[in-house]
Amino acid sequence: MNEIKIFSPATVANVACGFDVLGFCLDSVGDEMVIRKIDKKGIFITKIEGGFDLPEETQLNVAGVSALAMYDVLMPDCGFEIEIYKKIKPGSGIGSSAASAVGSVFGMNELLGRPCTKTQLTEFAVKGEAVASKCEHADNLAPAMFGGFTLVKSMSPLEILQIPTPANLYATIIHPQIEVKTSEARAILPKEVELSNAVTQWANFGSLIHALHTSDFELMKRSLNDVIVEPFRSQLIPHYYEVKNIVLEAGALGVGISGSGPSIFSLSKGVEIANNVADAMKSIYSKTDIDFDIHVTKINTQGIKII
Amino acid sequence: MNEIKIFSPATVANVACGFDVLGFCLDSVGDEMVIRKIDKKGIFITKIEGGFDLPEETQLNVAGVSALAMYDVLMPDCGFEIEIYKKIKPGSGIGSSAASAVGSVFGMNELLGRPCTKTQLTEFAVKGEAVASKCEHADNLAPAMFGGFTLVKSMSPLEILQIPTPANLYATIIHPQIEVKTSEARAILPKEVELSNAVTQWANFGSLIHALHTSDFELMKRSLNDVIVEPFRSQLIPHYYEVKNIVLEAGALGVGISGSGPSIFSLSKGVEIANNVADAMKSIYSKTDIDFDIHVTKINTQGIKII
Repeated sequence: MNEIKIFSPATVANVACGFDVLGFCLDSVGDEMVIRKIDKKGIFITKIEGGFDLPEETQLNVAGVSALAMYDVLMPDCGFEIEIYKKIKPGSGIGSSAASAVGSVFGMNELLGRPCTKTQLTEFAVKGEAVASKCEHADNLAPAMFGGFTLVKSMSPLEILQIPTPANLYATIIHPQIEVKTSEARAILPKEVELSNAVTQWANFGSLIHALHTSDFELMKRSLNDVIVEPFRSQLIPHYYEVKNIVLEAGALGVGISGSGPSIFSLSKGVEIANNVADAMKSIYSKTDIDFDIHVTKINTQGIKII
Repeated sequence: MNEIKIFSPATVANVACGFDVLGFCLDSVGDEMVIRKIDKKGIFITKIEGGFDLPEETQLNVAGVSALAMYDVLMPDCGFEIEIYKKIKPGSGIGSSAASAVGSVFGMNELLGRPCTKTQLTEFAVKGEAVASKCEHADNLAPAMFGGFTLVKSMSPLEILQIPTPANLYATIIHPQIEVKTSEARAILPKEVELSNAVTQWANFGSLIHALHTSDFELMKRSLNDVIVEPFRSQLIPHYYEVKNIVLEAGALGVGISGSGPSIFSLSKGVEIANNVADAMKSIYSKTDIDFDIHVTKINTQGIKII
């Protein structure tokens, strides 16, 4: 096998009370990539389709940098060509760069006979992700690589936990097409938080992990709250609380900012509610002059895969 | 049935990363109480044994106040006498007041034919606990009432989650006989904490909940860390870090301050390690002039019970 085509999924990070550590994987939204083993040594980005302004130089491209990190460690007796069919809009807040970063290393690993574990691959991908987001984090990479819900317990050493995904859990995501700069989303956060709020956050987060283990949807609903980050970052997303309120009225289990925004995610029990949630989201942004995309998808428990 | 005797267990609250929300129940340490239904209306503390200076006036006694809270709501056509055989030293940090507070209401509920749920009983007990600790909290009450590990998700409304307890999990507790005033233990805590530390804490807490669900002892070991509270409260407990270090060397899964101290708890896989941990703890305080008690006990998954 000298060439494979893969599906590299979009992901949601910063899942409400799980800020900076919890993520989940989407099913019907993702990039496609072709990875090709070649005789010539090196990593070459040979094609980027999708209409976005992404760098083709290997050292500047997210997929290229993660591939190089792996290549430099494994030193295989071959090279690789990478084609990227970008479908996740960069900057939308659903792990566009993470999909590229995991895609190249996952594909290379398959073509090399799987010398690396998924955690090792994620470590290489962290280097690529850092090119786009200017810091090393794995909260989108982990769910893209492993599927389902993942908890990044620590970055050094990298430790990723796979949390069970209840059956029949769906996500609805709206991407209002405004720009939220990651640097601005970071700068708006306080360096210190009230201890009482932190306690509330970890009570909710522990409860959410328990709810995922027990498929307790009502408890998920009571746990998907973020008292730390949402009050700040919501200021960067026009109509955020209008969306949140109408989505909860439509029966969603919870609503939050996806990654550092501007996408807003919600989780629902069953596709019917997830579709109603999509309609509710649309009803808010349709009244504005902000363009938007909407995705309704079940939670993808497999993660990145060969297609 | 007009009289029952109950065992009301000691408990550990503030379990490392689970500050303010997680607790667990001890098996071989606890008070005994006799609750007696009588014709005369009212709540009467008729006996307190154990050699501690505890008030016998119902309105000033923890067990009395929780009993009154329940009595005022249920308005039964009888009264109750309460005898307390106190074995948990007040102020030791293993839920002495919580044991009294749950004991009276649990016993009354049994004698009245169980009109209340355990959560309702815990709500009454919160009123008693507040007499001793000057604030309403349930992190010792919940494990005493339900057994095992409990997560107090919220106080208002009171919501308690029962988290699975891995088989073969043992606690070792040392009570160095120094006084740590709850007010001092509270005052020493900062009002604000760094966001990055808070994230570390909830990553650990979520991981601990996952570890308890999956009986993953190694993950428990990597999760039982407290970066928020321990650095402050450890200052109030002489030799704390010496104990912590030697106990981890002895093979414990984790070490922390029990409640607001001065007791130090540790968790171990199996009774053999738990006993080694006890020896290690003794080796530190034996070199000082501080008296101490040590308990080795399995985790009590039943909680309070009739004996």
